[in-house]
Amino acid sequence: MKYSDIFSQIYFDLENRPDLGQVASYIPELKNVDPAMFGVHLTTVDNCEYSFGDSEVKFSIQSIAKVLSLTMAYTLEGENLWKRVGVEPSGTSFNSLVQLEHNKGIPRNPLINGGALVIADVLISHFENPKQELLNFIRLVSNNESIDFCERIQASEKETGFCNAALVNLMKSYGNIENDVEEVLDFYYNLCSIEMTCKELSRTFLYLANNGIVPATQQEIICPSMSKRINAIMQLCGFYDEAGEFSFKVGLPGKSGVGGGIIAIHPHKYSIAVWSPKLNLKGNSNKGIWFLESFTSALETSIF
Amino acid sequence: MKYSDIFSQIYFDLENRPDLGQVASYIPELKNVDPAMFGVHLTTVDNCEYSFGDSEVKFSIQSIAKVLSLTMAYTLEGENLWKRVGVEPSGTSFNSLVQLEHNKGIPRNPLINGGALVIADVLISHFENPKQELLNFIRLVSNNESIDFCERIQASEKETGFCNAALVNLMKSYGNIENDVEEVLDFYYNLCSIEMTCKELSRTFLYLANNGIVPATQQEIICPSMSKRINAIMQLCGFYDEAGEFSFKVGLPGKSGVGGGIIAIHPHKYSIAVWSPKLNLKGNSNKGIWFLESFTSALETSIF
Amino acid sequence: MKYSDIFSQIYFDLENRPDLGQVASYIPELKNVDPAMFGVHLTTVDNCEYSFGDSEVKFSIQSIAKVLSLTMAYTLEGENLWKRVGVEPSGTSFNSLVQLEHNKGIPRNPLINGGALVIADVLISHFENPKQELLNFIRLVSNNESIDFCERIQASEKETGFCNAALVNLMKSYGNIENDVEEVLDFYYNLCSIEMTCKELSRTFLYLANNGIVPATQQEIICPSMSKRINAIMQLCGFYDEAGEFSFKVGLPGKSGVGGGIIAIHPHKYSIAVWSPKLNLKGNSNKGIWFLESFTSALETSIF
Amino acid sequence: MKYSDIFSQIYFDLENRPDLGQVASYIPELKNVDPAMFGVHLTTVDNCEYSFGDSEVKFSIQSIAKVLSLTMAYTLEGENLWKRVGVEPSGTSFNSLVQLEHNKGIPRNPLINGGALVIADVLISHFENPKQELLNFIRLVSNNESIDFCERIQASEKETGFCNAALVNLMKSYGNIENDVEEVLDFYYNLCSIEMTCKELSRTFLYLANNGIVPATQQEIICPSMSKRINAIMQLCGFYDEAGEFSFKVGLPGKSGVGGGIIAIHPHKYSIAVWSPKLNLKGNSNKGIWFLESFTSALETSIF
Repeated sequence: MKYSDIFSQIYFDLENRPDLGQVASYIPELKNVDPAMFGVHLTTVDNCEYSFGDSEVKFSIQSIAKVLSLTMAYTLEGENLWKRVGVEPSGTSFNSLVQLEHNKGIPRNPLINGGALVIADVLISHFENPKQELLNFIRLVSNNESIDFCERIQASEKETGFCNAALVNLMKSYGNIENDVEEVLDFYYNLCSIEMTCKELSRTFLYLANNGIVPATQQEIICPSMSKRINAIMQLCGFYDEAGEFSFKVGLPGKSGVGGGIIAIHPHKYSIAVWSPKLNLKGNSNKGIWFLESFTSALETSIF
Repeated sequence: MKYSDIFSQIYFDLENRPDLGQVASYIPELKNVDPAMFGVHLTTVDNCEYSFGDSEVKFSIQSIAKVLSLTMAYTLEGENLWKRVGVEPSGTSFNSLVQLEHNKGIPRNPLINGGALVIADVLISHFENPKQELLNFIRLVSNNESIDFCERIQASEKETGFCNAALVNLMKSYGNIENDVEEVLDFYYNLCSIEMTCKELSRTFLYLANNGIVPATQQEIICPSMSKRINAIMQLCGFYDEAGEFSFKVGLPGKSGVGGGIIAIHPHKYSIAVWSPKLNLKGNSNKGIWFLESFTSALETSIF
Repeated sequence: MKYSDIFSQIYFDLENRPDLGQVASYIPELKNVDPAMFGVHLTTVDNCEYSFGDSEVKFSIQSIAKVLSLTMAYTLEGENLWKRVGVEPSGTSFNSLVQLEHNKGIPRNPLINGGALVIADVLISHFENPKQELLNFIRLVSNNESIDFCERIQASEKETGFCNAALVNLMKSYGNIENDVEEVLDFYYNLCSIEMTCKELSRTFLYLANNGIVPATQQEIICPSMSKRINAIMQLCGFYDEAGEFSFKVGLPGKSGVGGGIIAIHPHKYSIAVWSPKLNLKGNSNKGIWFLESFTSALETSIF
Repeated sequence: MKYSDIFSQIYFDLENRPDLGQVASYIPELKNVDPAMFGVHLTTVDNCEYSFGDSEVKFSIQSIAKVLSLTMAYTLEGENLWKRVGVEPSGTSFNSLVQLEHNKGIPRNPLINGGALVIADVLISHFENPKQELLNFIRLVSNNESIDFCERIQASEKETGFCNAALVNLMKSYGNIENDVEEVLDFYYNLCSIEMTCKELSRTFLYLANNGIVPATQQEIICPSMSKRINAIMQLCGFYDEAGEFSFKVGLPGKSGVGGGIIAIHPHKYSIAVWSPKLNLKGNSNKGIWFLESFTSALETSIF
């Protein structure tokens, strides 16, 4: 109850603040989203739920899905995973090739595009039918059989994904991609095309607030120490070159996507999903960040 | 009691692990430290204290002091401070000039050398006698009138500090240094020459585990939200290009110094200081990081 | 006569100098070349010819062919060409993506891989059958109908050309590639697979020593001012990150290839081709550069 | 005669072309120059002279003087000089610290600021009274006892030279500066403050068109092969990040200064000095480059 009141209070406070952000345009299909959409959903580890606005409208979660593929690869590979991808913040914009060249094809972390492409490659090597396995895993985590890829988004990304093709080819030239370049890109675009509502997104990520266990089903997705480590990676690398700003203002680990979604985790307490499609210059949801900043300020709690 | 047992347990476990680190050599005076020194001290917000080893031997806290000058400047300038220094992780080694050039003289964060030099400049502009004011402030925070600069260390740093002189001149060329270059360097070397024991260091930083208030004196050093924000900056920027690794393994905000000291904060719980002079290739205490990793693993608690 | 004596004199002087260079290995087919091969051929603008060693053995001219595709594109586009590619030395290694990212997809010059890929794209846009047109053009310049692509080399490059695929995708993401990525790469690998002997190579490039006109046929390939400008580009950009060194030591405009060939031009006088397969760390023929340095020193003439 | 006619012809052609360049402002004293000044002077190796406009007005030759200090250091050190400075084009703007950091304190070439500071350091190590020795050397080369430093310019540069102070400190931190930082900067600012007229400048540099010998006095300044090598360095590095453009359009080795002067050399033929104070965005004289481009086009001769 209390949380819902705070949600509406913050929402109306923000209404007067002009949002000069832009809906992502480099993936043509994303442009068609109504920029006025705004939803928020919070789920606590003891399964209380609070929501506001367009919290049951599906949207493209985009890069937020990278945390799920990372979780899957981490359970399969354990600490060996870090031979192929780092855990350091990138310090530059999200698709920079500079650091990849400097690091001889080892991406700085698994949440930038380069790192997520390596994670995709890892998963492809593990399975006969990696796309279906990925979907099964996400459905298990979200306790929701209806979660699916979006073919339109996927096709749209493929058409304009020259920068990702550059990244994967560069890493292949350094020997850090095992599978065929096209197969890796195809899997990656499937991953990024996952659609969820704020409600579904919040529920899906609750395992990271609960030591790796899905509260609703008691399914252990990943062990407690690995769950903490994924939160640590989100804290340092979840918002491209705005990770410091988000950490500073919101004080929670989280991850954004160019669809305008943000997920944030308060360990042992809750998982909160916000969605507002207009992005700031660093590619993160403008209003989403403002909202979360006001929310953790109002509650006077963060992990710090 | 329990904590002290864990300390000795971890210490003896680590004894068998070969430490290939090197004592910092670029500041001649630092070379004279006994590399076998090892101390740890933990103080809880309710003033319980636990220690092990050489926890009452003074050492040069070096860059750890940057958190104290940052705290002082932040109370004086408020959020205006961020016009002159960022809050993003640097993503490269600790003295890189590349990013400074790219950012037109605005350092990425206040805990790398460039940022700490800007903070020094801010403090100099505020006071007639900035060095004495700094010392007064640190003594207030540490509740200890005996804390002091070390003249030998200071003189030694000045002799070899060409890289810092390059940084401050570069920032001056972009207009981001107000005072005389020599004065800024002089103040900065004073700051870095502060000496403390693990016990003193742990007690000094307890305000950051206690919403900005020194538990022993109930003195408010800084308001709660600013205290959280300093923790957030430490989390993302406290270990140069190893911030991700530290966050991933230890899961606490902290700061290291080339003297081999590390401070780490568990908000609402404790502040822990470790000291072991041998550094890894990234300039952080080798055994210090191992110790903290084992400690938070043994306790199964971190902020994540 | 005199020249041939100098050739053998220099060759025997160099025999005692240990050549620690390595045959290019990243293109598998290139590894099969006999590393002891050495040939040289000089043709003057008045059609005197001097040769030494394996001057009539075919080898893969690789990047040297980029000067020919540049000449062709320059005649078609005129000074408009420079909207899509620069004329500045690159200052970094030959396949760096850093500068491409910095320059928003405009390569620094037409002789690095990125630039040659843009030139390939320009030619593809001009013709229905660009590969055949390219071959016709090279045969016209070389006055030799037997010049041809090498299919083995081509196939071998394609298999391992992930770095070039990264470059062309990156430029496509910036809008500086008009055609299909695969088509551009295919054309580019054809270009690089051209084979010539030293004799053929020397004769082919004589037009650049003769104001754009092939002496043997009096065919004008390109106008005098454009011919001079191509020489200027070779002078500054013909040897990757060793252009300064070559200019300093040899004093002639030229171009190298990873097959171990080098062409150098003395305007108004001659064109000289050298071939020795072992490369230095910067990717240029070790003995080829030594030979040319000794040659211009012995003659006491260079363009400077 | 013919040359003077061409000079006036080109000058009047250029009058209609709007010059949007700006007089250098970062050194306060340079701002006081009349932007409408324009002078040119050409001296042939057989001592014919041609001039136009303000060719006998003194101006600050600034970085052009770096070629003279390089010549002096090269005669003293021989090829050992290249252990401390490279001969490769820089590929970035004239005061970049990035490359210095990448190259561990070895500047890319002697004509960028970093390189010229190393050359200054070399000369200081050789002499008891290096400034007087430098002046003596320049007077010998120019066959003109009246050439002198300008104290006003020197003082003005020192006041604002924070970027140069950053460069020299950075190189000192890498061990590539032997002398005191202040002494190196002081010598460097003296060097840059040299004043000449176009006539004096043209005569001074004639030795580089004449195999190292001053035609008027037959004094050998430097041996022929070293003279050629200095020309090669000017060709590749004489115009900061516009070296390729200048080489492409003008086709002669040369050097510019932020005072608006340019010297260019046609080996075995002439030396030409142009002066027009308004600079383009890359720091080179706008009208100076246009003039030289038209001049070598009109003559249809360049080194290529």
